[in-house]
Amino acid sequence: MLDRLKSSTGARTPAIDLHDLVTELFPINRSLTGAGVRQTLAVVARHVDLAIHEVPSGTPILDWHVPAEWNIRRATISDMAGRRLVDFADHNLHVMGYSRPVQAVLSRAELAKHIHTLPEQPDLIPYRTGYYADDWGFCLPDRLWREMTDDSYRVDIDSDLTQGALTYGELFVPGLTSREVLITCHVCHPSLANDNLSGIAVMTALAMRQARQTRRLGYRFLFLPATIGALAWLDRNQSHLDRVEHGLVLTCLGDPSEFHYKQSRKSAPIDRAVAHVLKHSGHSHEILPFSPYGYDERQFCSPGFDLPVGCLMRGVHGTFPEYHTSADNLDFVRPECLDQSYAVIEQVLDLLDRDYVYERVDGRGEPQLGRRGLYRAIAGQREAGGATQMDLLWVLNLADGKHSLLDMAIRADVPFARIEAAARLALDASLIRPAASPGSASGDTGRSEAP
Amino acid sequence: MLDRLKSSTGARTPAIDLHDLVTELFPINRSLTGAGVRQTLAVVARHVDLAIHEVPSGTPILDWHVPAEWNIRRATISDMAGRRLVDFADHNLHVMGYSRPVQAVLSRAELAKHIHTLPEQPDLIPYRTGYYADDWGFCLPDRLWREMTDDSYRVDIDSDLTQGALTYGELFVPGLTSREVLITCHVCHPSLANDNLSGIAVMTALAMRQARQTRRLGYRFLFLPATIGALAWLDRNQSHLDRVEHGLVLTCLGDPSEFHYKQSRKSAPIDRAVAHVLKHSGHSHEILPFSPYGYDERQFCSPGFDLPVGCLMRGVHGTFPEYHTSADNLDFVRPECLDQSYAVIEQVLDLLDRDYVYERVDGRGEPQLGRRGLYRAIAGQREAGGATQMDLLWVLNLADGKHSLLDMAIRADVPFARIEAAARLALDASLIRPAASPGSASGDTGRSEAP
Amino acid sequence: MLDRLKSSTGARTPAIDLHDLVTELFPINRSLTGAGVRQTLAVVARHVDLAIHEVPSGTPILDWHVPAEWNIRRATISDMAGRRLVDFADHNLHVMGYSRPVQAVLSRAELAKHIHTLPEQPDLIPYRTGYYADDWGFCLPDRLWREMTDDSYRVDIDSDLTQGALTYGELFVPGLTSREVLITCHVCHPSLANDNLSGIAVMTALAMRQARQTRRLGYRFLFLPATIGALAWLDRNQSHLDRVEHGLVLTCLGDPSEFHYKQSRKSAPIDRAVAHVLKHSGHSHEILPFSPYGYDERQFCSPGFDLPVGCLMRGVHGTFPEYHTSADNLDFVRPECLDQSYAVIEQVLDLLDRDYVYERVDGRGEPQLGRRGLYRAIAGQREAGGATQMDLLWVLNLADGKHSLLDMAIRADVPFARIEAAARLALDASLIRPAASPGSASGDTGRSEAP
Repeated sequence: MLDRLKSSTGARTPAIDLHDLVTELFPINRSLTGAGVRQTLAVVARHVDLAIHEVPSGTPILDWHVPAEWNIRRATISDMAGRRLVDFADHNLHVMGYSRPVQAVLSRAELAKHIHTLPEQPDLIPYRTGYYADDWGFCLPDRLWREMTDDSYRVDIDSDLTQGALTYGELFVPGLTSREVLITCHVCHPSLANDNLSGIAVMTALAMRQARQTRRLGYRFLFLPATIGALAWLDRNQSHLDRVEHGLVLTCLGDPSEFHYKQSRKSAPIDRAVAHVLKHSGHSHEILPFSPYGYDERQFCSPGFDLPVGCLMRGVHGTFPEYHTSADNLDFVRPECLDQSYAVIEQVLDLLDRDYVYERVDGRGEPQLGRRGLYRAIAGQREAGGATQMDLLWVLNLADGKHSLLDMAIRADVPFARIEAAARLALDASLIRPAASPGSASGDTGRSEAP
Repeated sequence: MLDRLKSSTGARTPAIDLHDLVTELFPINRSLTGAGVRQTLAVVARHVDLAIHEVPSGTPILDWHVPAEWNIRRATISDMAGRRLVDFADHNLHVMGYSRPVQAVLSRAELAKHIHTLPEQPDLIPYRTGYYADDWGFCLPDRLWREMTDDSYRVDIDSDLTQGALTYGELFVPGLTSREVLITCHVCHPSLANDNLSGIAVMTALAMRQARQTRRLGYRFLFLPATIGALAWLDRNQSHLDRVEHGLVLTCLGDPSEFHYKQSRKSAPIDRAVAHVLKHSGHSHEILPFSPYGYDERQFCSPGFDLPVGCLMRGVHGTFPEYHTSADNLDFVRPECLDQSYAVIEQVLDLLDRDYVYERVDGRGEPQLGRRGLYRAIAGQREAGGATQMDLLWVLNLADGKHSLLDMAIRADVPFARIEAAARLALDASLIRPAASPGSASGDTGRSEAP
Repeated sequence: MLDRLKSSTGARTPAIDLHDLVTELFPINRSLTGAGVRQTLAVVARHVDLAIHEVPSGTPILDWHVPAEWNIRRATISDMAGRRLVDFADHNLHVMGYSRPVQAVLSRAELAKHIHTLPEQPDLIPYRTGYYADDWGFCLPDRLWREMTDDSYRVDIDSDLTQGALTYGELFVPGLTSREVLITCHVCHPSLANDNLSGIAVMTALAMRQARQTRRLGYRFLFLPATIGALAWLDRNQSHLDRVEHGLVLTCLGDPSEFHYKQSRKSAPIDRAVAHVLKHSGHSHEILPFSPYGYDERQFCSPGFDLPVGCLMRGVHGTFPEYHTSADNLDFVRPECLDQSYAVIEQVLDLLDRDYVYERVDGRGEPQLGRRGLYRAIAGQREAGGATQMDLLWVLNLADGKHSLLDMAIRADVPFARIEAAARLALDASLIRPAASPGSASGDTGRSEAP
């Protein structure tokens, strides 16, 4: 514990430029399956040692089947004079995901059944998919659609739905123990920057960072097509889900909204950890209760699995005007917001890794701090924002084999890092030691296996 | 479960005119015992198949004995010229309950010891009883008493206190299981319309309604003289009180006050059920903590029994100016208030009966709703105020054998009926089933036996 | 129980003049060890039968050793002309506690290293100690120090640090049961009136009072040098600490601040008892959560002991300007504040002693109060602020072997004394009896052994 505790310093800066990575990934046409997901994972794999999994179309996955693989090359609406009015080449949101191929001339009325617009945001292209709909469609600005007043149009979608595969990426960074932290993001949205290229970029940088360090817990990073990708991973890993001690779904981390943390279904230590870090982060934030709608926490927290998985966001799906439109673009996502999100999550991961239970070597009464030079040690840390004498007294009082460092930080109402610094002083002075059998008595925080 | 769940529709309208029933019962001179109680129960028995119990005077009942039976034929105060100034024939509140017979000429000063008035409500007759007092008394408007300035008056009470019986009525509507809901009201007040002819009328209509339906729980309706009647029933039924899963005392349900629900002594599922129904009823209401004063919940919640019994009222005893006076008359009780009270309690009873625990047939991950036509089913219900997609997701997420439908409705913060409609969709789609052994793990709601 | 319950009346007035006792103790130069502590305990021993314990210097005490005994006869700073500028004889705060002997002429700069002043309170002498520092020092008003502009001064401290003892006083008033209440104060501060002569005086009067009465619980009063004294007592009494059912550290009880009660570490019945008494005392007050800094509750609540000990104060250490200065003098401590503090704690002790669990002799249903004359009994008490009918109903309802009288008082939201009076009526009427096996079921209050 001592050595690793000492590795906790260092600036919380991502190893790569997050906005650059978002920019690189932006043009790729992702969907639930197909070439776009593979290209995206290939970019991520330049940074981390990603395992790519392919699950064949038709494979049964719990209540589902892996759908056909969808790829698209070209999609246009032209007028009868041959002018291209809507072109997938201009923006991949123009085509509804999973559109089947079509080549036809249609009356405006017939075409209208396949057109999606946003009358209240007339300049924006909406994002629509029809994964299981066996349909086709175009998405365009409402203003453009209202200008298209010809009697007939020619539509041309060159796509195919074939027996291929569902693709997802996985990186496991083993820890000193068999306990794991699950971190996931979705990779199935086309050119939408916040939802969820921001999540992919932040998670890539976190994976790079965790891979560089020896840690108590293992870290499993999953780049998943939403729902069916998460279900596929769950289905294939059912026998060792009990290793998952904490989990976090990452999404919409680049916009300037305040942070939002959605709690896990069952009230888990991850909820206390994220709330603690946000509280002391100086960033405004809101804690939301679990609900069975949102991202893949829906699957991880379904009753048969009920994993301790929360979801961290800045803007909340469905509540910001850019959501699922062409306005969720590279301008909407800001470098400093990405970096803030990265730093918050890095702190959460460090906290989870170091949230250990200690016990006093002799817990009867306060020890004599002066004799051990601890008053001097505290004075020496003062400038560096280290532990105060009060922090040390809290650690010595609560190191009873029942309280973790996070329990202490919450009760003392000080940042985890200060309690951790105090614990280091107490460890160095041989006043505390890792608890022999991390407790069952407290009920405050889940306890972790010793390394 | 499925069939009965389907029986839940229908307008919440009483089968009889509640105000008419109150009007019919109003003139009867009820007391703790005697002809008035029997006449009242005979009226109720025209509507439901009531069992009439007679407990002889002198029978030991826990700490008490059944008192002598009181009947009265005539009571007057006349002046010495023979003019009747106060006459029981005009209003049965004029005589203190359990007045012993008296024929005498008394000085005004001697008479005054037997006179009850309300100086702050000088036009109203107070309601007084002296069940165990071996006394007699008259109740009259203070204004009248102050006009009675003669030296002497003649009083004449033609009553008797004889070895008779205490009478109460009971209707048991058996359910598919051995679990019961206890619903009681008191029947010992003379011409007081809200306290408690309103309770008698609403309970009669509820009994008629429950008797018409097959239900999971049994429903036991008790029409009881207060305190001694409740104690008599408890004393005679001690061996099977453990069948009582929920209970509700009904009183003062016809006045236009907001609803008041007084919680049970031990915090029981009935408390959550009534609070939930009131919250979503649109009626203003207040939840009151248990206290050992009030109606027969005092007896049901005494420490030796400690049954899960609450009390539903509109106006609270002792707090409205009409309470226990001649102003608690047929005008004070309003037809629409009686009907509202009936509808609220009917909803509570339906909720209790249907508050079942379900489990997912395969709880691992979200099921594919589209494949099962559930998106269409939800869209079809939308106009009818049925389940939303979110309601269905809540049901699928919380159908884990630990949460009842009420638990789900409270967590989702939507009316029980919407969660129930969602559960019906999920049942029809074979996604959930009644839980094999309704849980012990949750601690949220008491669990019910399966039918 | 009945007899002792009847002894609860009487004015809550201390048997001695508290301010006089503070005044008598004020001039004595107390420190962690030495003659001053012994003189102080000798004064207390004139009032109560105090056992004096001496623990030899060097004795190992948990993580500590008993320090050398410190005594001082004389300490001055003089100018080179021989004028005494600072003299221990004028105020014992002038010398830092545990100053070693010194006789020297020093430059002003060298002397400055040993001078303690309060630049922001330039007229006050600070209180400083250096128990384990092997140093010496003078404390003086900053204004005086700034006037001392000579080049050199002569210092003369005639003290010694010898192999002596640590002294503490103990009074144990046995109860009818083996359970104990621990009440402690610190006796190691020199001429500081509030901190903690107020505590010593109040505790002396409480000890006198408890010693006069037969009580269910034992009462152990400890007059302790802070920290090392408390640790010494804990170390020597480890084998029977499980007898301690409640504990209270008393300090700063004479200033006019509102009351402050600092809760025990583990949330104990003492916390509910003090909060209840303060709530109904009419005095403004604040409840503070436990923290591992303060007085000897730090030791009693350290993880190896974790005793149910709180701390009652008026002004809180470190927050009032007179704290640890010469302004904490006989004017700062007010007779009426001392008396108020005494009365509050006396009520707490009585409550703890009488907070017994009762059960109904026959708990099934309400008993008949009228037959037993209880309505008359209540009416008789009304003028004397005794129990109301509602209080009696609460007692009869909650006398279930699980609720103590304090539980009842808190639930009924009335003063403990009224519930106690109601319990006495119920006892006299043979309606309740002390519970056979005081419950484990409630979780509200800790239960006490029967006498």
